[in-house]
Amino acid sequence: MIKLEKFISNFAREFDEFFINLLPKNKFSKKLHKAMSYTLSVGGKRLRPIFLVEISKIFDVGYISALRAAAAVEFIHCYSLVHDDLPAMDDDDLRRGHNTCHKQFDDATAILVGDALQSLAFEILSDKKTHSDPEVRCRLIKELSSSSGAKGMVGGQMLDLEAENKKLNLKQILFLQKLKTGELFRFSCIAGPILARAKQLDIFTTFADNLGLAFQIKDDLLDIDGDENKMGKKTKKDSSRGKGTLISFYGKENARKKSQELINNSKNILKPFGSKADRLIQLTNYVISRNK
Amino acid sequence: MIKLEKFISNFAREFDEFFINLLPKNKFSKKLHKAMSYTLSVGGKRLRPIFLVEISKIFDVGYISALRAAAAVEFIHCYSLVHDDLPAMDDDDLRRGHNTCHKQFDDATAILVGDALQSLAFEILSDKKTHSDPEVRCRLIKELSSSSGAKGMVGGQMLDLEAENKKLNLKQILFLQKLKTGELFRFSCIAGPILARAKQLDIFTTFADNLGLAFQIKDDLLDIDGDENKMGKKTKKDSSRGKGTLISFYGKENARKKSQELINNSKNILKPFGSKADRLIQLTNYVISRNK
Repeated sequence: MIKLEKFISNFAREFDEFFINLLPKNKFSKKLHKAMSYTLSVGGKRLRPIFLVEISKIFDVGYISALRAAAAVEFIHCYSLVHDDLPAMDDDDLRRGHNTCHKQFDDATAILVGDALQSLAFEILSDKKTHSDPEVRCRLIKELSSSSGAKGMVGGQMLDLEAENKKLNLKQILFLQKLKTGELFRFSCIAGPILARAKQLDIFTTFADNLGLAFQIKDDLLDIDGDENKMGKKTKKDSSRGKGTLISFYGKENARKKSQELINNSKNILKPFGSKADRLIQLTNYVISRNK
Repeated sequence: MIKLEKFISNFAREFDEFFINLLPKNKFSKKLHKAMSYTLSVGGKRLRPIFLVEISKIFDVGYISALRAAAAVEFIHCYSLVHDDLPAMDDDDLRRGHNTCHKQFDDATAILVGDALQSLAFEILSDKKTHSDPEVRCRLIKELSSSSGAKGMVGGQMLDLEAENKKLNLKQILFLQKLKTGELFRFSCIAGPILARAKQLDIFTTFADNLGLAFQIKDDLLDIDGDENKMGKKTKKDSSRGKGTLISFYGKENARKKSQELINNSKNILKPFGSKADRLIQLTNYVISRNK
């Protein structure tokens, strides 16, 4: 088995090529096309896609189906970052070591890039290339739209905005994070079983809940301790804005323990799948061992 | 037959009640929910919904199916207005005589309201309450997502932004308008035949192309001559920004003639449907007879 970092970067390269090719070929506005390509090509870890694709492998889902569903969730994730970075929101100039979309282009372009990426996610899922069964495609769309809207990611972002300079309690922070990042993780982990018309949605929801929270704790730890150069973005953002984070409740040491516990829970769920889940177990460990 | 204005306002009242009830019941962020409700409840002519529903009647589509598809296109239309009104875009404080979303709340909230409304549109279409056949639901999602994304409405908005202080030729303006407003009209006019699994998509596309352009010419005429109080928004916007409009090419008198011609084309398409299309013909006339 090749080294995990190599596997992840190979996947990211292959995925990015596939993903960027899903942009509309009709470049009606060259600037919009350029800004969409820029946004997608500055990369990222592609964590949601890699989990989606690896879980799909357990269920013997066709590779193109899995990649298309992975592209859809990544389009949603990317659009949310573009909007989140806007001056009216988090006001970030740098992401992954590159200018954010509004910095590279302008605010209006960034708003429209985000809007167009969201539409594209649903367009891709609705196409029969994603799956021959329209019931499966509708199910994916239902899950992705509810995960990303007011009851999911956007709802979480709104709670996050409202939390500035307000001390949330632990339950409130957990709920906010569940919406803001957990819901897209949930989609990424159940898309495979949905594509396979399998019954294991519940266990992959639990897998995702544990994984998503571990991811968030690790993100908070990196925000405190991470190397700004490696991260390619500003760190210590949350604490400087007076936001309560999971770390402020757990303390650093307990937070680390908690994240390890969550990852163990996730890995236990994968046990019944035997050696088919080997790569997935490595990836699950990576969520808290990563340094960026 | 009751007077058309009364019919339109009755429809809008009934539609609005249905439409606002589609907002998620889980008010995770009360502010987001309030801002979404505000945005939807300040109204509008509901032209896209009324055409969608009336065309659906010709095809004996179930009323709830038609209303849900109409809600989806109106959610997209509303989200685009919320984003379009932002300071980074058109910077409008007033729409339909009320504060725009970002003015009533703040820019970040308006960005998120728009994002959540877009997700909601696709969530509604993906639900089996919209149609029992998932193939039909996927078809609607495919059409609405492509009409609203980079190849449609958002692409048109981008071309519009790029057109500031740049003189477009007639062909370019027609193309821009086709994307910016024409595409959602197209969806509104083909959703009925799609819901009915009917074959007449082509003729309703032609119907929509004529109708959409006539609508746009009328909008441009109202922008020049309209009463700011009746319109409930700033007028003379395009001309003050040095944008070429259809009127600057046709001249006012020829623009009126052109719009009448387009409406006649649309009405001719409805002839084979006989008295079933009576109301639709009245509505088609209204597109250029309206004063707001």
